[in-house]
Amino acid sequence: MMERLEELRLDEIHIDDGFWNFYRSVVRDRMLPYQWEILNDRVPDAPKSHCVENFKIAAGLAEGEYYGQVFQDSDIAKWLEAVAYALAGAELPELEAAADQAVDLLRKAQQEDGYLDTYYTIKEPGNRWSNLREGHELYVAGHMIEAAAAYYENTGKRKLLDLAVRMADNICRTFGPEPEKIHGCPGHPEIELALVKLYRVTGEKAYLDTAKYFLDLRGTDLSRERYEAEQKRPGFRHIFPEFEHLGYDNIQAHKPVRMQKKAAGHAVRALYLYSAMADAGVEAGDESLVEAAKVLFDNVVKRQMFLTGGVGSAADGECFTCDYDLPNNYNYSETCASVALMMLGKRLFQTERDGKYMDIAEQALYNTVLGGMSLKGTEFFYVNPLEVVPEQLAANRTLHHVLPQRRKWMGVACCPPNIARTVMNLGSYMYAKDPETLFVNLYVSGKTDVSMETGCARLEMRTGYPFEEQVAVKVTTAPGTRMRLAFREPGWTRIREVRDAVHGRTIPVKRERGYLYTEILPSGETAELSFCIPLRERWMQANPRVPFDAGKAALMRGPLVYCLEEADNGKNLAKIRVDPDCKAVPGPDIPGGERSIPSLKAQAFRVSETEEEAWLYREFREESLEPFEIRAVPYCMWNNRGVGEMRVWLPVVRKTGACNICRG
Amino acid sequence: MMERLEELRLDEIHIDDGFWNFYRSVVRDRMLPYQWEILNDRVPDAPKSHCVENFKIAAGLAEGEYYGQVFQDSDIAKWLEAVAYALAGAELPELEAAADQAVDLLRKAQQEDGYLDTYYTIKEPGNRWSNLREGHELYVAGHMIEAAAAYYENTGKRKLLDLAVRMADNICRTFGPEPEKIHGCPGHPEIELALVKLYRVTGEKAYLDTAKYFLDLRGTDLSRERYEAEQKRPGFRHIFPEFEHLGYDNIQAHKPVRMQKKAAGHAVRALYLYSAMADAGVEAGDESLVEAAKVLFDNVVKRQMFLTGGVGSAADGECFTCDYDLPNNYNYSETCASVALMMLGKRLFQTERDGKYMDIAEQALYNTVLGGMSLKGTEFFYVNPLEVVPEQLAANRTLHHVLPQRRKWMGVACCPPNIARTVMNLGSYMYAKDPETLFVNLYVSGKTDVSMETGCARLEMRTGYPFEEQVAVKVTTAPGTRMRLAFREPGWTRIREVRDAVHGRTIPVKRERGYLYTEILPSGETAELSFCIPLRERWMQANPRVPFDAGKAALMRGPLVYCLEEADNGKNLAKIRVDPDCKAVPGPDIPGGERSIPSLKAQAFRVSETEEEAWLYREFREESLEPFEIRAVPYCMWNNRGVGEMRVWLPVVRKTGACNICRG
Repeated sequence: MMERLEELRLDEIHIDDGFWNFYRSVVRDRMLPYQWEILNDRVPDAPKSHCVENFKIAAGLAEGEYYGQVFQDSDIAKWLEAVAYALAGAELPELEAAADQAVDLLRKAQQEDGYLDTYYTIKEPGNRWSNLREGHELYVAGHMIEAAAAYYENTGKRKLLDLAVRMADNICRTFGPEPEKIHGCPGHPEIELALVKLYRVTGEKAYLDTAKYFLDLRGTDLSRERYEAEQKRPGFRHIFPEFEHLGYDNIQAHKPVRMQKKAAGHAVRALYLYSAMADAGVEAGDESLVEAAKVLFDNVVKRQMFLTGGVGSAADGECFTCDYDLPNNYNYSETCASVALMMLGKRLFQTERDGKYMDIAEQALYNTVLGGMSLKGTEFFYVNPLEVVPEQLAANRTLHHVLPQRRKWMGVACCPPNIARTVMNLGSYMYAKDPETLFVNLYVSGKTDVSMETGCARLEMRTGYPFEEQVAVKVTTAPGTRMRLAFREPGWTRIREVRDAVHGRTIPVKRERGYLYTEILPSGETAELSFCIPLRERWMQANPRVPFDAGKAALMRGPLVYCLEEADNGKNLAKIRVDPDCKAVPGPDIPGGERSIPSLKAQAFRVSETEEEAWLYREFREESLEPFEIRAVPYCMWNNRGVGEMRVWLPVVRKTGACNICRG
Repeated sequence: MMERLEELRLDEIHIDDGFWNFYRSVVRDRMLPYQWEILNDRVPDAPKSHCVENFKIAAGLAEGEYYGQVFQDSDIAKWLEAVAYALAGAELPELEAAADQAVDLLRKAQQEDGYLDTYYTIKEPGNRWSNLREGHELYVAGHMIEAAAAYYENTGKRKLLDLAVRMADNICRTFGPEPEKIHGCPGHPEIELALVKLYRVTGEKAYLDTAKYFLDLRGTDLSRERYEAEQKRPGFRHIFPEFEHLGYDNIQAHKPVRMQKKAAGHAVRALYLYSAMADAGVEAGDESLVEAAKVLFDNVVKRQMFLTGGVGSAADGECFTCDYDLPNNYNYSETCASVALMMLGKRLFQTERDGKYMDIAEQALYNTVLGGMSLKGTEFFYVNPLEVVPEQLAANRTLHHVLPQRRKWMGVACCPPNIARTVMNLGSYMYAKDPETLFVNLYVSGKTDVSMETGCARLEMRTGYPFEEQVAVKVTTAPGTRMRLAFREPGWTRIREVRDAVHGRTIPVKRERGYLYTEILPSGETAELSFCIPLRERWMQANPRVPFDAGKAALMRGPLVYCLEEADNGKNLAKIRVDPDCKAVPGPDIPGGERSIPSLKAQAFRVSETEEEAWLYREFREESLEPFEIRAVPYCMWNNRGVGEMRVWLPVVRKTGACNICRG
């Protein structure tokens, strides 16, 4: 019998953290209001969203034409979900008023039978559910449901939940195994995990059943027959003609989900699907679904993931490709795909209690997900390369999908609100609990009030993670509370000991699957624990089967991947060579406009300029290398100082004894 | 006053060479008959050509629809040109009959006023010259003219030349500075160099004037006005909507040609243009045109050329990109572009007498041009990558333009006949002369009869080049003949001495700009010279500004680039490391089906299999390397033993003293 760890309520978690206060206030105070302006088309020079306007038209409150992607509705849904998390335990009257206004509008646009999708309502009212492969109605519905559950859980307001319930009821009436229902599943998974979430919130088993129906049907002959029948409908037209050449693997419909062993197809779709498999599997007691999700997770993280926690190696199809195909400069690594990888990691951790899943969630979060936003909070990356030479991006259209700088908004705007909802939902990644264990996954300062089965406790954490190593934890348990703590020990380090900070004693802990479990803490008392998470500046290496990283090394410290930028290291970053025997050490903080950017420095080398202009190829000579102190910045903070080159993986040269820094 | 070296007549050059007999007989006896069958749509399972059929329809000999690219006519033109060269001094009755039949057909399809283009004749008879940017009529005409000149020069038959003259007269009546003529130039250069060639054959200065008119007009506001006016014509449609986003630089119309300093745009177009600039410049005595071509050549070979003599880094636009953008696995390097680079190199050598130009022509020829054909002669590459992992090509559509194996034919079939005409026209690259100097550029065994200003001579050469180093030259001059020889000394080696093979004496030579000039040879005597061209197995290095080759080395011997193939070195070629201190040496011949493939071997290293499956990233450790003897084959012969990985640039590791081969 599988058991799932429970998340804490977000209003129990009071974050007050050096690193996260910055990012969360940027998202809360700047990004979310900005996105509302965008959704209302009030930001000059930004691409048109029309998202709110579409709802007004669908509600009969405005006249006009639908504009935008077929899934444009999902932008406001993810924004609402983000606002919901922001409102947990916080007073944000303007944002809340905007959100309530949005909910009212959504309600007005909802059809009498619960259906809500402005594209089909405005443009093709007779064609509901006629193009499951591309129509994205169920995808949009899923985000509405996720938003509704979050809005209800964090504000107590039911209006959006009621809307979602009517919508979900419509879906459950429409899809299922019964002969009169549609036997089909969506081209873009999302509804499945949303229905499980709605089941958890409402207890209505029909939602779980329908989620499981979609999962069980996917990849069967029957599911593909539906797609094929759709295309034979008179008047059928492709919504995405540019994806017509892609096979069923792109929508994970090439095989029944339990038979899928390698991550395939559109990366966001894949990871939303695998997340739903974990969700539905644990709720329905179907281990085969969870096991299948675990196999797929392993394939992703052992074969198809960039060091930055980015996934999706191909632009065309925005998809997984094959094992070890991890190109640094023409990858896709959509921001949303790393959000989805965090979602999968959290879910598998919750069923497996294994720290390796949260290691990956953390890697995706601190690198690609945060890297998807500027430090201002108003510019966004969709594609997250590990190597950029701006001149090449401009000149070689093979790289057309890679941009050298974040944009104010995009025509396909899935990523910006996905970042927002993830950052505002940080608490759900920080902690989880079973009846007597509180799992601590992310190291973030603040106060948390947690109810355990036998009582409650307050946990206070102080840390400068991910830049500093010390963690201090003060836990006060109410009398009678049985509670132990399980601290995640990141796979890249070893926590030397957990100490009683008052008496200086070492606290006995049990190491198990990536966690340090304390014993049951004395109830009705305050314990003060402290430990060090050695951040360990470390040179990383990729599996030799990754051709793109052969002979190279990349720098990490703690969960952060570091990169070199032209701003600090000059042009032609490819001329820099590193020797992993030269240890990197913290360097100065660099002004980053919105916040300072901590750096690492290391003794390295750079090919000297001598004669280099004059030739393109020559006979091999030992390169004439000059000592060159590199300055590396966290990957998540790159491109906050103008356009320039950036590079994560650096060619290695061995120069025994040549290091000034690590010997000095 | 510039002077241009003269080419020899092909029938003066009797090639009888170990290396070239193979390639030339494959082309003559297999490829040319095969291509005739293709052009007649008689090869099962090959893509339809319809080229001959289009001419039949245009001539009123058949009914049907036009099929193929707008420039489909050029396929037969280049084939005819290749056959013309093949017929020089050779009896090939079947091929000649087919060619004569083709010429008759072309004549029947030619319009009364000299116009010939089956696309416009069949499909858009009212729209001649209405789409200069995309219509390719002048491009097709240029290839017809080149074929006609070659057919006349090598067979003495005038029919095709007469056709070309009528066609050229039509063009000269249509285009020019006079008010009543069209003020425009073609989107695809080719007519310019063809008109200069026709001028040389016929002495008619109008052809040179029109060529120069096109060159002088190109890139001016006036030339662009014409393109813009064309698009405003009622009923205008784009022939290549997929290229609509490309700018004027793609067709080298962004600037007047003399102001172009960096190679830009479609690589074949660019190099045909620069060739025409050299041609027209020298004939018209316009040094500024030749100087501009030299600057552009230098940019290509010092900034934008692959080691294999491939050019064109981007698939979209098939174009040059920016300096040092030389990706090995998503490059384009169209076979035709390397043919065009040879053409430019030959022309600049002929005006400049500098061996560096022929070095590049040789590099393009022996690597990418020959690599464009299979050893069977019936399969062809359009794109020539330097690194292939077949699984990645299948899975990641960013690489969709790169194929892991040659094809029987293509929908755009410019490359196959371009290879054929180049191989059959080898003689034009081998020699050139001024009144008393015979320049020897390529080392190819055989007998050559050459007329100098003062008499004639016979030169016999014996060599195993490019695999063997010795060259023996026997020259017999007629009495009174003043003649010296100039042997090209490839830039990658140093010819130690030229010896009198009979008496063993060293012959005095003067080194100048890449050539060893003998003194005037005694007339009426036979001289026997011999020398050694050290082929020098050598590890090459790219400029450190080329990010893709940082920390890597590639193997060359003589003019040949070598590569590793999976067939000889196993899968995961990226796991191989080389130490340039370990010298490569000749290895065994490898059975290649049609001929044996000479190999090189070198002590190298391979990352050991230990645990490699289990991880994707880990902390840097010195790689556990196993000694591994690599086997490298000439790049031009890759992919003749099935589909597999291939790699030119190999990561370097320094392992002083670890070599078994070079110390043994």
